[in-house]
Amino acid sequence: MDTVTSLLDSIADVGRDPGRGGYTRPVYSAAERDLRAWFTEQAGRRGLAVETDRNGILWAWWGEPQRGALVTGSHLDSVPGGGAFDGPLGVASALVAVDLLKARGVQPNRSLAVTVFPEEEGSRFGVACLGSRLLTGAIDADRARNLKDDDGNSLADVARINGLDPQHLGRDEDALGRIGDFVELHVEQGRGLGEDGPAVAVGSSILGHGRWKLSICGQGNHAGTTLMEDRRDPMVAAAQVVLAVKQVAAQTKDARATVGRLQPVPGGTNVIASRVDLWLDVRHPQDEVTAQLVEAIHGKAQKIAAFEGCQATLAEESFSGTVHFDAALQRQVQNALPGAPVLPTGAGHDAGVLAGFVPSAMVFVKNPTGISHSPEEHVEDADADAGAGALADVLEALL
Amino acid sequence: MDTVTSLLDSIADVGRDPGRGGYTRPVYSAAERDLRAWFTEQAGRRGLAVETDRNGILWAWWGEPQRGALVTGSHLDSVPGGGAFDGPLGVASALVAVDLLKARGVQPNRSLAVTVFPEEEGSRFGVACLGSRLLTGAIDADRARNLKDDDGNSLADVARINGLDPQHLGRDEDALGRIGDFVELHVEQGRGLGEDGPAVAVGSSILGHGRWKLSICGQGNHAGTTLMEDRRDPMVAAAQVVLAVKQVAAQTKDARATVGRLQPVPGGTNVIASRVDLWLDVRHPQDEVTAQLVEAIHGKAQKIAAFEGCQATLAEESFSGTVHFDAALQRQVQNALPGAPVLPTGAGHDAGVLAGFVPSAMVFVKNPTGISHSPEEHVEDADADAGAGALADVLEALL
Repeated sequence: MDTVTSLLDSIADVGRDPGRGGYTRPVYSAAERDLRAWFTEQAGRRGLAVETDRNGILWAWWGEPQRGALVTGSHLDSVPGGGAFDGPLGVASALVAVDLLKARGVQPNRSLAVTVFPEEEGSRFGVACLGSRLLTGAIDADRARNLKDDDGNSLADVARINGLDPQHLGRDEDALGRIGDFVELHVEQGRGLGEDGPAVAVGSSILGHGRWKLSICGQGNHAGTTLMEDRRDPMVAAAQVVLAVKQVAAQTKDARATVGRLQPVPGGTNVIASRVDLWLDVRHPQDEVTAQLVEAIHGKAQKIAAFEGCQATLAEESFSGTVHFDAALQRQVQNALPGAPVLPTGAGHDAGVLAGFVPSAMVFVKNPTGISHSPEEHVEDADADAGAGALADVLEALL
Repeated sequence: MDTVTSLLDSIADVGRDPGRGGYTRPVYSAAERDLRAWFTEQAGRRGLAVETDRNGILWAWWGEPQRGALVTGSHLDSVPGGGAFDGPLGVASALVAVDLLKARGVQPNRSLAVTVFPEEEGSRFGVACLGSRLLTGAIDADRARNLKDDDGNSLADVARINGLDPQHLGRDEDALGRIGDFVELHVEQGRGLGEDGPAVAVGSSILGHGRWKLSICGQGNHAGTTLMEDRRDPMVAAAQVVLAVKQVAAQTKDARATVGRLQPVPGGTNVIASRVDLWLDVRHPQDEVTAQLVEAIHGKAQKIAAFEGCQATLAEESFSGTVHFDAALQRQVQNALPGAPVLPTGAGHDAGVLAGFVPSAMVFVKNPTGISHSPEEHVEDADADAGAGALADVLEALL
């Protein structure tokens, strides 16, 4: 029988990033498509029938598709230079859990589907959990169709190339109605389980989080001929904004704010930039505090920009309020995993989007490095096996 | 007869950059190759025989190739999102100057060559004036062959694809010996000629300048799960370095220092970067002060990085000391252009590299915006014509 580790080993060469290290598997890239094909093949080996719904979500059915089914799954796309576990661990564990349930001779009272959600990371089109947002209507379909990747390709065009009808992207009542309960297993992404703690935990909540794009416009010019005092350099303003972001977050309990992506335009060594685009990732347990943090950063950015002779404009790309998972479902999951600690998470997940519409729960597997979105993310083989066993226990209790 | 403006109009659609505005014509891109083909055709129309030397420099000969010829020219490559004049103005003016000399019935005492130098901007392989550096041996040929563009292609590979033998890149005694005197016409790139000043100026010197790559390594991690106090975020360090660069330059008379290019790795919105690469452009009339500026920036960067739990490493990519043009040749150029002001420039040029090996001079044409390396760079039609006329006067006096 496959183990989680053997399944992950079978995709270990897909989408490796020689430059950044780790994996770069953006949605609908060659790598992510290879992973979807791998999933379809693995599901087929288990006798699960695979459907692709109109938002590009894969559903592998044990039993007939039906309303109110039990659904588990995660995603296969990655951040640039991400780890091997963020996403694929949940998918591989779901497949192994099906094997375990069958080996245990479990006779399900309802159908079970294993799902793969596209663009969970938002690393191609800028909106995280795009698949679950489309499914639930949490994002406007027109807005989604017009999202563009860095090469200027719209989601509509990319969807069309990948066999979807862009006009049918958006809230899918039938598909959503099939989710009676949703359980997502995911690698833990902080230090919540410690280095020597238990292998699995039960999720309680997801920290509210959002993404904002800040553009600072100045005056592009020659780096050699333009006197320091004649400059309106948006990079100098952007640098002050990066520090303001850190300062604002550090002064607020439980806040996290990050600038991980920043692009000077045109980006030449001997050119004063004409514009700098930077992206803010801001998170806090209280949604009104997140809004205050962003407002404070925006205010500081405008003052900084004005002082440097530049202009700053801010646009929200996505926002998800803090999510508390369904209390009844969480209790059932805890009952199936006696002794497992209960943890909140600072990371966003499709389960968090779905939680606004259907009962959802999460199971976390220990990451001893505490590092994620990095090649150094890690799960021990024994913990991965324990995770799949725990997921099987949860699914058995819910089937 | 062609005017400079009509020649530039004929290439106005080549290499336009819809995203940044202006032109993006990196060396050996489709756009820059189209411009080379355009040059060869224009030279042919004038009866000039075109050669490509072993470093990829184009030579269009009026008269037989000979030692000690008079040479004029510039470049056709651009920075990302550059203006229409930086480079092409000098090439187009040289072609028009040949027309004018012929129309005047000038009988040359020596041959004249119009040259096009590749990779003047260094926007693809990181080293500015790469063609003239190779020709003169100012860059080690092995180092040059191993320079890589952002896609990981080496200069050796790109040269091979473009019909050059990479083993023959490097100092070319024969070609260098053919340059008796070199005159480069170029758009002025600061406010040296004012808005209402004369159309042309004579160059006196080029500000010493160099490029350094600073890499700051930290700990890549998840933007949502990593507490602010647990971070070793190289973006936060890089932001402080950008401000230190400005401060160091602003405190030193006549210094200019710029960060126009900065790349976080991996560069995801929801990812704390593991590394930030940034490029310094530093310039000062005194080479020892340039070295002190870079040392000061490096020292500050190391302290900043250490404070943020990161490491900073600095590598020189290129350096050119301040160049004073050949006094005797400059006098001849001034005599041919009575009343033209004499200006230093803060921008690097192939004429500056050649000046270390052969008598070289420059003629600048007014740029009323004072803006360069930007779509807003501008030359009035009348000033462009005046520039070609002035270049013809200079060449006539030297032929």
